[in-house]
Amino acid sequence: MLEKTTRMNYLYDFYQSLLTPKQRSYMSLYYLDDHSLGEIAEEYNISRQAVYDNIKRTEQMLEQYEEKLLLFQKFQERQKLLQQMKDEVDKAERPLYGQSLLALIESLEKLD
Amino acid sequence: MLEKTTRMNYLYDFYQSLLTPKQRSYMSLYYLDDHSLGEIAEEYNISRQAVYDNIKRTEQMLEQYEEKLLLFQKFQERQKLLQQMKDEVDKAERPLYGQSLLALIESLEKLD
Repeated sequence: MLEKTTRMNYLYDFYQSLLTPKQRSYMSLYYLDDHSLGEIAEEYNISRQAVYDNIKRTEQMLEQYEEKLLLFQKFQERQKLLQQMKDEVDKAERPLYGQSLLALIESLEKLD
Repeated sequence: MLEKTTRMNYLYDFYQSLLTPKQRSYMSLYYLDDHSLGEIAEEYNISRQAVYDNIKRTEQMLEQYEEKLLLFQKFQERQKLLQQMKDEVDKAERPLYGQSLLALIESLEKLD
């Protein structure tokens, strides 16, 4: 059985543009819309096994992309650093200074 | 003639892990070590045209990856925001507070 993990959701988010339209359809139904393999098979009028194989292969591709580009890993490291920056700003006593920095930190977070 | 641009250097930097070993060899000789097409042709004992075609195709691949993943564009946006953060920290009056923030900003820069 495939495991619906947060990790796979993230990997899909980062690398979906490198997938084919069919791969994207199956993955997004399975991971984002939480359909079952049986439901997707019915929708596309193919066997449950074919859906399973396709998603399994796609998952392996996503893991390979992550191995090469490390987008998810860097995203996590960046989030950690940004949280530390926020904590630093919170410690400060000058609210105005903090606000412009917080705005910049938020812009950085939105970039990911 | 191929144009040796800073942009292509960056794109190669971001996406080289997605290329084949041969593509990486030609690109790194041409862009990083600044060899000429003729020199690479001689080294690999193939025609100058073959080297040109290979590099040209690779450049197109790199542009396609950038179109899909936007790593270079996001890198530039991030650098701009990080510079703005540094400027904010420079404006501050409390040196200690600024130092820990600067260290975090530098860690973020290194992540790219």
